[in-house]
Amino acid sequence: PDWAMAKTKFEYVKQFEQQDPLLPNTWLVVRIDGRAFTRFTQDHAFEKPNDVRALNLMNECAKAVMREFPELIIGFGESDEYSFVFKKRATVFQRRASKIMTSMVSLFAGNFVLNWPKFIIDKDGAPEPLQYIPQFDARCVLYPSDKNLRDYLSWRQADCHINNLYNTCFWSLVRKAGVPEAEAQDRLKATFASEKNEILFNEFGINYNNEPVIFRKGSLLLRGHEEVTITKMSPTSKADPTPIERTVTRKRPAVLVHHTDMNSEFWDARPELLAE
Amino acid sequence: PDWAMAKTKFEYVKQFEQQDPLLPNTWLVVRIDGRAFTRFTQDHAFEKPNDVRALNLMNECAKAVMREFPELIIGFGESDEYSFVFKKRATVFQRRASKIMTSMVSLFAGNFVLNWPKFIIDKDGAPEPLQYIPQFDARCVLYPSDKNLRDYLSWRQADCHINNLYNTCFWSLVRKAGVPEAEAQDRLKATFASEKNEILFNEFGINYNNEPVIFRKGSLLLRGHEEVTITKMSPTSKADPTPIERTVTRKRPAVLVHHTDMNSEFWDARPELLAE
Amino acid sequence: PDWAMAKTKFEYVKQFEQQDPLLPNTWLVVRIDGRAFTRFTQDHAFEKPNDVRALNLMNECAKAVMREFPELIIGFGESDEYSFVFKKRATVFQRRASKIMTSMVSLFAGNFVLNWPKFIIDKDGAPEPLQYIPQFDARCVLYPSDKNLRDYLSWRQADCHINNLYNTCFWSLVRKAGVPEAEAQDRLKATFASEKNEILFNEFGINYNNEPVIFRKGSLLLRGHEEVTITKMSPTSKADPTPIERTVTRKRPAVLVHHTDMNSEFWDARPELLAE
Amino acid sequence: PDWAMAKTKFEYVKQFEQQDPLLPNTWLVVRIDGRAFTRFTQDHAFEKPNDVRALNLMNECAKAVMREFPELIIGFGESDEYSFVFKKRATVFQRRASKIMTSMVSLFAGNFVLNWPKFIIDKDGAPEPLQYIPQFDARCVLYPSDKNLRDYLSWRQADCHINNLYNTCFWSLVRKAGVPEAEAQDRLKATFASEKNEILFNEFGINYNNEPVIFRKGSLLLRGHEEVTITKMSPTSKADPTPIERTVTRKRPAVLVHHTDMNSEFWDARPELLAE
Repeated sequence: PDWAMAKTKFEYVKQFEQQDPLLPNTWLVVRIDGRAFTRFTQDHAFEKPNDVRALNLMNECAKAVMREFPELIIGFGESDEYSFVFKKRATVFQRRASKIMTSMVSLFAGNFVLNWPKFIIDKDGAPEPLQYIPQFDARCVLYPSDKNLRDYLSWRQADCHINNLYNTCFWSLVRKAGVPEAEAQDRLKATFASEKNEILFNEFGINYNNEPVIFRKGSLLLRGHEEVTITKMSPTSKADPTPIERTVTRKRPAVLVHHTDMNSEFWDARPELLAE
Repeated sequence: PDWAMAKTKFEYVKQFEQQDPLLPNTWLVVRIDGRAFTRFTQDHAFEKPNDVRALNLMNECAKAVMREFPELIIGFGESDEYSFVFKKRATVFQRRASKIMTSMVSLFAGNFVLNWPKFIIDKDGAPEPLQYIPQFDARCVLYPSDKNLRDYLSWRQADCHINNLYNTCFWSLVRKAGVPEAEAQDRLKATFASEKNEILFNEFGINYNNEPVIFRKGSLLLRGHEEVTITKMSPTSKADPTPIERTVTRKRPAVLVHHTDMNSEFWDARPELLAE
Repeated sequence: PDWAMAKTKFEYVKQFEQQDPLLPNTWLVVRIDGRAFTRFTQDHAFEKPNDVRALNLMNECAKAVMREFPELIIGFGESDEYSFVFKKRATVFQRRASKIMTSMVSLFAGNFVLNWPKFIIDKDGAPEPLQYIPQFDARCVLYPSDKNLRDYLSWRQADCHINNLYNTCFWSLVRKAGVPEAEAQDRLKATFASEKNEILFNEFGINYNNEPVIFRKGSLLLRGHEEVTITKMSPTSKADPTPIERTVTRKRPAVLVHHTDMNSEFWDARPELLAE
Repeated sequence: PDWAMAKTKFEYVKQFEQQDPLLPNTWLVVRIDGRAFTRFTQDHAFEKPNDVRALNLMNECAKAVMREFPELIIGFGESDEYSFVFKKRATVFQRRASKIMTSMVSLFAGNFVLNWPKFIIDKDGAPEPLQYIPQFDARCVLYPSDKNLRDYLSWRQADCHINNLYNTCFWSLVRKAGVPEAEAQDRLKATFASEKNEILFNEFGINYNNEPVIFRKGSLLLRGHEEVTITKMSPTSKADPTPIERTVTRKRPAVLVHHTDMNSEFWDARPELLAE
């Protein structure tokens, strides 16, 4: 059979593929979300309100994404979601939306599965079994102005704060005070932040501001440098060529995790982030 | 700080998210492709022209996707790509393109990493190390008519045939006859299928039609039933309640792998596939 | 100043233009709607519930559009809207959505203004003044199956029926029985078609089915032929070359206006309309 | 027949309509282009290289569009095209692309037809007949930054300059020197601006910079104020109430036509244009 002729005959179907280039010169945010993670966290007995092992695993996956896509300048993670910011002039995959989001989410998901046994371990360091493969979805969102981008990140960070304060309260009531879940929900409904802070302090002796910063502020990935210590053999001195072991410290580019407010001071201190 | 107020203030950024619903009542194909897999196969010393272990791994990932998305009716894989066909009336994620393709590709990628050690093993059954996480991209394509859909699948299957015949020739010349790669490429350039068949037969004693069908026709996933054999204890007879071990055979729904031409006979024999 | 160099420098802005090709092999409907026509009809004292002059003007504009775009197979108009159906395989402007709808709507609007004085005339045949230029909007909608297309047209025709029955009742109450508008609205609210028919018959002696068909069924444009009568000079006979005046009748392609239900009989009688 | 039930049954077809909201907070440019205007200008014997009557007609149409859409801040016209700039925060029609471009182009086209007899007149002031209705297409383009928008306008203005210099040369050669069109084209091919200026000056005594500014720089529409003189009756004085006729001058908002370079000085002098 003449497959080449056949292929030519069928090739017209390529015309049905739609192009999806994203508007140039805009901040491009890709947000990855865990799908049905409420159930996933239950099925894997994640600690409540936060499982620091899972947050560290998410950060590890996000770092891998940042390393792979050099035009990414910021990553921000909270709970089961991660936002990635490409610089305005990014030309990754000619800014084709499908290509960008699917490549990133597949890399994230692959890393999640591969690194699971290193991060999700029990007290004795033994890995907990991964019951099934989690799914992540992703979307591209464009922000034209610097202010829009900053507001986007503030929105996600405010979301982190609000959820964490609520969840810290909720799980204290449920796990420490034995309040039934529905009752705890009722009690917290429509309370202000100050009231939740008081419940934590008065009933559980928790000063919310002393809670781990990774829970309160989420995880922010930025490019920076890390010091690496290398041990190598080198001549003892100019006079004496006998090799001896020396420890040297070097700097190399790295993706670093921060837990900090993305407020005006933050941006003012890092003008290069929003520079063209 | 009043995070709730802050969140409200920043929430306007949600309006920048664009909806991407796909046209209803059309065949929805999601095609997943390995990114930079030429290099990936080199880095992992995959067998040439085909590594059956890798094809089986791809099939395993695709089956997981078919099981997770019940509106999928067909999967077709060749080389490092897999096409999935949703029925025309599928309402998966309200047909939102980003959500569909990213959820599927993340599930595929996670399965690829998780199942790697089970499939990519050496002669002694030991897993080969996964050097790095592969990336997959994905896209959604719509086909309005049954003919368009059939032509799409024929296009991919013709592609499989053409590439496999070429690659079988090429790697025979290179690996068996020691021809340098550039020379082999030159020799095959602009040859017809019949000429490639002759090279294989005359120079390498290979009857192309006897090559493994999985290489020649790709892998087709369809829903069907598999027989499962269960061993259970049950009474010996009505009179004698003593339990004895019995083996029973049951049928249950399953995703089955086929290697067959998707030609007119194929479709005529399975009218339910294209039925509304 | 070197304008050519300048132009080259600025030309990058073309990259910001987004392509908008419509999915091939689908029925392409362009619907044109009068914008703010409730007010436009008041400002021009159109007859209520229907102004046959305005409907004829709309039909004239639509015919001009059908003549200009040969891939259009159907037009359907009611009130201040007109739907145009391109055949599935239409390649008009490479199916670019913006180009298609803007070219059509501009042609429609230009015809509306130009033909206004011919159609919107008073009892003595004098044109009524056009107070201001009306606006029309337009949109492209794709329908994958024949059934979807037929249902679309039925939807618009049902809309025509419902509105016309309601409006005939409403304006009879208001104009003939002197009922205040709000009261008439109240009375008709939540009435069934049969009740509206009874009001018309019992209170106004109107048999709705005898109302003009253009009001009840809208206007359907199809391609056909019209007879044209030409007067020309030709020889009296073979023997006698003296030219005499003769009247001959010819057929030529034309866009014809129908007022008919687009039901099963309609489609069954015209298989060529939905043929590929 | 129960039309209401029918309508409900068919109404599902509305789901096939796709939404097309444009990204918020970006400069929105709508460019309207005459379709096949080379032929249209021939069919109407427009003067070459420019017909000032036609440019004035285009400006009149554009002013009508600016008056109708208050969020438009700039219009720029040259030849048979007009660009309109909406302010970044414009919410016209909820930024739905189809609605915006079709409403504007229909208004433009309607004005073109209506105003034709006022503008396209012969030496004696009699209107030239409009042979057929011209078509215009339109598209929406988004520009994220002020620089992008300025570059867009500079691009169109450079286009105006280049075309006008070329056309002035070309038609001088053809109409004044009797050079055949193909020969004139050959001679101008690949000439620099300076060479075209020299041809004009040496062969036709034309100093290009003295050509009418509307030809060289296009037409720029900005909002401003115009003085209107009203004649009204008012008391003669406080003492004497006898009404006498007085002429008073008032300012009222208007769309004004400019012919000026949109260079840095232009923008610096009008900071309000690009202000949020």
